Amino acid sequence: MQKEEIEHYLFTHIPLSTAMRVRVVEADWDHVMMSAPLEPNINHRQSAFGGSVASLAMLSAWTLVYFRLRKLNHLARVVIHQNEMQFSKPITDKFEAVTDPVSDADWEHFDKVLQRKGIARIEVTVRILFAGVEAGCFKGKFVALSTL
Amino acid sequence: MQKEEIEHYLFTHIPLSTAMRVRVVEADWDHVMMSAPLEPNINHRQSAFGGSVASLAMLSAWTLVYFRLRKLNHLARVVIHQNEMQFSKPITDKFEAVTDPVSDADWEHFDKVLQRKGIARIEVTVRILFAGVEAGCFKGKFVALSTL
Repeated sequence: MQKEEIEHYLFTHIPLSTAMRVRVVEADWDHVMMSAPLEPNINHRQSAFGGSVASLAMLSAWTLVYFRLRKLNHLARVVIHQNEMQFSKPITDKFEAVTDPVSDADWEHFDKVLQRKGIARIEVTVRILFAGVEAGCFKGKFVALSTL
Repeated sequence: MQKEEIEHYLFTHIPLSTAMRVRVVEADWDHVMMSAPLEPNINHRQSAFGGSVASLAMLSAWTLVYFRLRKLNHLARVVIHQNEMQFSKPITDKFEAVTDPVSDADWEHFDKVLQRKGIARIEVTVRILFAGVEAGCFKGKFVALSTL
C-alpha cells in the first residue's frame, strides 16, 4: 500500500483529513509520519489549533496499528479508547506527527491476545514536530476487535 | 456576546470549526455547550472521528475560559497545555460537548494567581453526549497569560 493510497483512503473516509490537508510522508508497519500545513489548521493566535494537532497524531497512530494488523494478517477494526496529549510549544507553520517505535514485545503480546481473545489493546506514542523540534506528545490507547 | 458572535469568531479564526460545522448551543461564563453534525466529522467506521470529538471538546473548554476571563475583566490569552480524553461509546449521529461546572474556589484561585503572577492554570472537564448519553470525557488544562 502506497502513501498515496493511504491519503486517498483517509480523504475518502475521514473528511476532516481533507479539510486539514493531511499528507502521508512515510508509512509502514513500523513507523508512520504525517504532515499538515498551518493554514487550514490555524487558530486565533496564528498558531496550530490543538484539535488539529491531536487529530494528526491520532491519524498517524491509527495508521500504524492498521498497517501492523495487515502485517500480522489480522482482520480487525481499530478504535481509539483513550488519549493524552501534551502541547509544549506553539506551532506557527507546517507540522509533522511521527510515531515512536512500539517494542517487539508489545506487538507480540498484542498479536497473541488478539488471536486468543479477539480483542487486544496497544498504546502508541506520537511526537509532534515543528521545525524539527518536538512541540507536543500524544499517547493513545487503541483497541483492535477481530472482524473474523 | 451572543452565540452567533462566538460562531462567527470561531469560523473566522479557526477554519477547522467551519469544516466541522460547529454550532454554539449555549455559552456564558458558567457553561458552554457546542454541537457538531456527523457528516463532516465521520470516520471509516461511519462514526465520529476521535479528532473531531476532541476538537469540539477543546473548543467548548476554551470558550468557557475565554468567557470567564471577560467576566473577571482580565485581558489574557488562553492556550491548551495538556489534555486527556476517554472515548466510551461510538457516536453515530450529531454529538454535543458540554462543559462541567468549574468550582467557584477554582475560578477564584485562577483569578487571584492571574492577577498576581500574570499566568494561571485552570482545568476544564467536558462531557461528550450522543443521543443524550455520555459517549466520552475530556479533561483539559489551560494556561492563561496576561496580555496587559
